[in-house]
Amino acid sequence: MDIMERGTYLNRLTALRRRMMSSGPDGAWIIQPENRRYLSGFKAEDTHFPESSGSLLISDSRSLLITDSRYTLQAQHEAPQFEVKTLRQDLADGMPEWVADMGARTLGFEQDYVAWGLHRRLHDRLHGLSPNVDLIPLNGLVEEMREVKEPEEIQVLEAAANLISEVLDEMVRRLRPGMTEKEASWEIEGLAREAGAEGLSFPPIVASGPNSALPHAVPTDRGLQTGEPVILDVGARLNGYCSDMTRTIFLQEPTPEFRTIYRTVRQAQLAALKEVRPLVESTHLDAQARNLIREAGFEDYFGHGLGHGVGLAVHERPRVGPRHSVNLKKGTVFTIEPGIYIPGKGGVRLEEMVLIEDTGPRILTCKNLFYDF
Amino acid sequence: MDIMERGTYLNRLTALRRRMMSSGPDGAWIIQPENRRYLSGFKAEDTHFPESSGSLLISDSRSLLITDSRYTLQAQHEAPQFEVKTLRQDLADGMPEWVADMGARTLGFEQDYVAWGLHRRLHDRLHGLSPNVDLIPLNGLVEEMREVKEPEEIQVLEAAANLISEVLDEMVRRLRPGMTEKEASWEIEGLAREAGAEGLSFPPIVASGPNSALPHAVPTDRGLQTGEPVILDVGARLNGYCSDMTRTIFLQEPTPEFRTIYRTVRQAQLAALKEVRPLVESTHLDAQARNLIREAGFEDYFGHGLGHGVGLAVHERPRVGPRHSVNLKKGTVFTIEPGIYIPGKGGVRLEEMVLIEDTGPRILTCKNLFYDF
Repeated sequence: MDIMERGTYLNRLTALRRRMMSSGPDGAWIIQPENRRYLSGFKAEDTHFPESSGSLLISDSRSLLITDSRYTLQAQHEAPQFEVKTLRQDLADGMPEWVADMGARTLGFEQDYVAWGLHRRLHDRLHGLSPNVDLIPLNGLVEEMREVKEPEEIQVLEAAANLISEVLDEMVRRLRPGMTEKEASWEIEGLAREAGAEGLSFPPIVASGPNSALPHAVPTDRGLQTGEPVILDVGARLNGYCSDMTRTIFLQEPTPEFRTIYRTVRQAQLAALKEVRPLVESTHLDAQARNLIREAGFEDYFGHGLGHGVGLAVHERPRVGPRHSVNLKKGTVFTIEPGIYIPGKGGVRLEEMVLIEDTGPRILTCKNLFYDF
Repeated sequence: MDIMERGTYLNRLTALRRRMMSSGPDGAWIIQPENRRYLSGFKAEDTHFPESSGSLLISDSRSLLITDSRYTLQAQHEAPQFEVKTLRQDLADGMPEWVADMGARTLGFEQDYVAWGLHRRLHDRLHGLSPNVDLIPLNGLVEEMREVKEPEEIQVLEAAANLISEVLDEMVRRLRPGMTEKEASWEIEGLAREAGAEGLSFPPIVASGPNSALPHAVPTDRGLQTGEPVILDVGARLNGYCSDMTRTIFLQEPTPEFRTIYRTVRQAQLAALKEVRPLVESTHLDAQARNLIREAGFEDYFGHGLGHGVGLAVHERPRVGPRHSVNLKKGTVFTIEPGIYIPGKGGVRLEEMVLIEDTGPRILTCKNLFYDF
């Protein structure tokens, strides 16, 4: 299902063209799957990089969707505002003809997504054209547009967050000693499907005891035990949009050490949360949480950034960490997820999805499932 | 679980070093996830390109695994033959120090996986070293090693193929008119998990009626109907290795047109299959199937290649299609999957996983579930 109106895509194309006119190339070549979907509504995914299900070619007056025969019908159906062209050969061999036809002399490309080898081949072909065409990095033109969510997107993100909140709530009720991480993970997936998710944002993380010290643990056959932390990091997709949330649970009482760790992580999260407002610096938010964790003596055990944007991709701009400061705009949806991980023992992570509104943060994920020590 | 012996990884490293000595760079930088796993046993996946969970740096005498704090423990555990280094900054900023430390003057990179932007940043940093280091395309050095499967790999691939064959067999028994494509897809996933799969190779394709004309259809809420084709294209993962198979089913009798199409596809598959032998040209196999489809008048409706290699990745070398001929070596595991797709009406695809043995093909997927018209 596509809940976006046709007009949404046309508006986005107009916005992209306006940005291109002011500073960009004559044409934009869009192959990154979320950017492609954002601009066209074409929902095909790329199962495995660098396999591609299609590219957009956008100039001032033309909108082409280049795909292969596997996706032609789908593209025509999902992106009717694009001229769909079917490749009969490799992209680097087939695309130049359409670039020439568009009359572009410079073509923007997604430099953090296009492989060096494909760029090289395409560069050579485009320089064989007369007149020749130069490839120019797009520098995140579309990613930047995606950072600030439209009202329709916020609605869908909130629905995806609600869905996963309810799933997690139910899952926590079902956790019991002896259940394995894999069983819990699989049950989360089932609950998400039953709740109407298109799929998960990523394979669920269920990490118990020492495994919870691995921030990206893969569920194992380890059985859950009382007293130790169980990290559940899950997300669901709805209408293409992702949710992402984390809770840390103890079956019965945590040890005093983990009680302290839990409280520190929660306070770090709240410290960051209360500074959320339009145009706040991303590094400022990270510092709020990090300082609190440092003061508690756990600085060395919080090795990742505070959070990341969420939208069509589960990880997207803005990155919110100790480096690369950006001012976070109103309408941005991102996670706040501090964690403390003690190798060999276990970890605690708490993650919310937050929307920046004029008045401050709006938490999109559920507000319960916190231990109140 | 890792069914490979420690020695397997050491042998692969030795083989890579031998290849590098004869023609390659001083060092190899491996970031492509399956290549990384193949050489090291480090199982972390990259959920989303270009997010990376780690890189290998391999020289004549050193084996480094560079990751970040999320994966340090996992890397130490899964790849004990590597020195694990934890990045505290971006890869392009952090890696050059270790490259310099290895003493390499030329560093091979995976040109079809490394993004242009990352290459550019790393190139600049490596040229800031003294002596400076040149980046050189690896030209599929590791992918080439992966093409020919070791006996342990064949065992796992066969187990993965058996697993999905049984799942598909059971699923076909459960299909009934009115069941939706999504319901069937979800049930396949459940059956695969219950059968012990780590996960699926890709989201199952269940495409009925006109949807079956889309080779990469995503399951919809459409209910299955009698008389029309239902394509089931599924795969499961076991110990990291993928399976991939496709059947086309009719609930009750196909129409005369689809009977003809089905028979044509099946004969095309058998025509290719009987030519499988060590060193056969990939284009020769494709031509066997394609000629038969052409003679039946359906040439325009078979828009994809005949098949692809299967291993740690569900799509890997060799590509078996009408272009880019390669000689297929003994020990190669690949798919034979001709299809005919009539837009608006429906399609038929049949896919087997085949191993090349001295004596000819060994079909790894099940041999039943074919209509005998």
